[in-house]
Amino acid sequence: MRMVDLIIKKRDGHELSDEEITFWIDGYVKGEIPDYQSSAMQMAILFRGMNNREIATLTDRMEHSGEVLDLSHLKGVKVDKHSTGGVGDKTSLVLGPMVAACGATLAKMSGRGLGHTGGTLDKLESIPGVTIAIEGDRFAKQVNSIGCAIVGQTGSLVPADKKMYALRDVTGTVESIPLIAASVMSKKLASGSDAILLDVTVGEGAFMKNMDDARTLAHIMVDIGNRLGRNTKAVLSDMSEPLGLAVGNALEVKEAIAALHGKGPEDLMELCYTAGSIMLVQANCAKDLEDGRKKLHEAIESGAAFEKFVKMIEAQGGDISYILHPEKFVVAKNLIEIRSEQEGYVKSLDALDIGIASMQLGGGRETLEDVIDMSAGIMLNKKIGDYVKKGELLCTLHTNKSEKEYAPIIEDVKKAYVIVKEKVEARPVIREIIEK
Amino acid sequence: MRMVDLIIKKRDGHELSDEEITFWIDGYVKGEIPDYQSSAMQMAILFRGMNNREIATLTDRMEHSGEVLDLSHLKGVKVDKHSTGGVGDKTSLVLGPMVAACGATLAKMSGRGLGHTGGTLDKLESIPGVTIAIEGDRFAKQVNSIGCAIVGQTGSLVPADKKMYALRDVTGTVESIPLIAASVMSKKLASGSDAILLDVTVGEGAFMKNMDDARTLAHIMVDIGNRLGRNTKAVLSDMSEPLGLAVGNALEVKEAIAALHGKGPEDLMELCYTAGSIMLVQANCAKDLEDGRKKLHEAIESGAAFEKFVKMIEAQGGDISYILHPEKFVVAKNLIEIRSEQEGYVKSLDALDIGIASMQLGGGRETLEDVIDMSAGIMLNKKIGDYVKKGELLCTLHTNKSEKEYAPIIEDVKKAYVIVKEKVEARPVIREIIEK
Repeated sequence: MRMVDLIIKKRDGHELSDEEITFWIDGYVKGEIPDYQSSAMQMAILFRGMNNREIATLTDRMEHSGEVLDLSHLKGVKVDKHSTGGVGDKTSLVLGPMVAACGATLAKMSGRGLGHTGGTLDKLESIPGVTIAIEGDRFAKQVNSIGCAIVGQTGSLVPADKKMYALRDVTGTVESIPLIAASVMSKKLASGSDAILLDVTVGEGAFMKNMDDARTLAHIMVDIGNRLGRNTKAVLSDMSEPLGLAVGNALEVKEAIAALHGKGPEDLMELCYTAGSIMLVQANCAKDLEDGRKKLHEAIESGAAFEKFVKMIEAQGGDISYILHPEKFVVAKNLIEIRSEQEGYVKSLDALDIGIASMQLGGGRETLEDVIDMSAGIMLNKKIGDYVKKGELLCTLHTNKSEKEYAPIIEDVKKAYVIVKEKVEARPVIREIIEK
Repeated sequence: MRMVDLIIKKRDGHELSDEEITFWIDGYVKGEIPDYQSSAMQMAILFRGMNNREIATLTDRMEHSGEVLDLSHLKGVKVDKHSTGGVGDKTSLVLGPMVAACGATLAKMSGRGLGHTGGTLDKLESIPGVTIAIEGDRFAKQVNSIGCAIVGQTGSLVPADKKMYALRDVTGTVESIPLIAASVMSKKLASGSDAILLDVTVGEGAFMKNMDDARTLAHIMVDIGNRLGRNTKAVLSDMSEPLGLAVGNALEVKEAIAALHGKGPEDLMELCYTAGSIMLVQANCAKDLEDGRKKLHEAIESGAAFEKFVKMIEAQGGDISYILHPEKFVVAKNLIEIRSEQEGYVKSLDALDIGIASMQLGGGRETLEDVIDMSAGIMLNKKIGDYVKKGELLCTLHTNKSEKEYAPIIEDVKKAYVIVKEKVEARPVIREIIEK
């Protein structure tokens, strides 16, 4: 078998066999197939696509390119949750404790933020003392006793994805849906959970800008997961505007804490209830979605979900006084209020613009080497559909940067808000649920 | 400027600016842009194409990636001729002396054969003593005194093409028409001639399998040549069956000698007259095609063209006794006659099959390291449109291989001939002439 023949086959629009995909991925990981052939193949896949059988095989080979976690010694059905990324997305911090309080087990490997999107690990680390480097027995013990853990990926999982993603990033093939699906799913499968709930975000602040692409990606990933023996479902959630009202690491943790007290913004609560009820059914902890939602409400009302969060943070070394007294979180030096220059309804609030502004205020990374200012970010006061008077507060920027640095960001954030005379409806956060 | 942004731009179907193409090619030749980015770009170009302005800039940057020959010190208008390759294509050996006898100057860099296609340098070297390593003053002296030289390319011309072609060969982008056009034209332009006549072959034995592709490629190359200041024209010639009757190095040289005596096969003569008359007009040695054709006929009839060939071979160190007495060429040990098993008309005679058979008989290279048996090849007795009786000779295989080795080749050659009851017309060798 010659790699060039496989590239030509895909280039000409033909299906690759399982053996051919295995030849490529195994050879690439071993260094027998060079980057320049892999990049040509990835570009051919971007143009020609892959069918679900091909993507499942690709995912499977990537999953097995390194260590695969075995969570079978942990109690119960392990459910995992993955979001394709967004702005203000603190869902995992809320969902994990919620489903754990209802008897499900969440053993989650999470990632860091880059560019306009935040990362759950960074958010967790804004709580003083928290570590995400929890492995082996300590990890098992935490999951078994508390029911949830959110930790960093170990180095030896899915080396194929690390190598392929780095190559895609510099060769213009990040946007290929089959490659995105295989990348996400290979990591989820290698993490060893029994069931997977995917949150596929859609809109300006998401990777998928339109419903068609998001739906296609979600269907492919659900199909792959189920083909490879994991109960997999997906929600499509709106990311045209940020999720919730807080954007920025410590600000989002405080919002997550409020949500665990039942006092989070409506869109965040709704996403957590919808995704959580699906996860409870997947984990055999609820008989249907309605039952799941009821149990989640009880876990919030009773304080059980909040209690799980406290226990998780404690187990991961965090100072729980911050959780119990969120006012302890350091607040940024400069709080800049942005007020409306007109009266009307918020028609759009570009999540990408807000994500970039938050990053520039210090709340995110432009490159992987950048250091995050945990206190920086943006607190929104108005979102799509809200009525706003002239002079009323739209949002507040939190930053430790100088006025010279943040002045242009003020203008960018103003532009992110589009205000019109006509009444505008709020956007539903759940766009679609994909169960098979 | 970042290479990944240029890849994405082309991937998304946009035009690259001159600066962007320069950034890519200069960076790639210097080693600042890695193979894996260049291969992704080439694949994107294969899918998205390039307009003529982009291809001209690409060609120009490739041409100037290394040494560019200056032939301005040589007498007269220098015309070059390039064929996109075929089976039995000994045209250059005949055309060079023909046009030189009519006052034009041909200073040609030629190539070697690979796979089913032969190379002019190999054919020349089947004449004992001939060298193709002629450079500098010796080259200038030969061109000035005789009017023609056919030599090997020097190492320092068009390094970008060497690097890019090697990469295309292993990444499935050989078939991209813009990349083929830039590869051919950058070499022709760097070789320094004032005018270029392209012979774009079309059919089973050629790189371009159909007229549409061949016409597209020819138009692009003619346009690029003229944009970059060289008088460039093209003929499209048939390569569905081999050109002439001889396939194999020494066999083809003998046929070329016969053609220079006016006794070559009709298709070969017609291609030489058509291409030669265009070249004479390009070189200001004929006022129009008719005048050019008349002069070429005279050069054949008078023996002037043959005389030029003798002088060229002599100047390049060859033993001219072989030219004067072609019966001196060593004949292969085994001459295997293939006779028709049915009566009828030859409907097709697949040039690719014949080219591969000739290679397998020892007459060509499967890899660049293979050594050629100069005496091996195939002499055709029947071509498309010919009437053949049962038991009549179709062709003769010439080989020094053992019966065990050549037995399967006999079957392949038989299959290359398709004989039908209905009358079939001979194929015209000239399919089209492209003058602008």
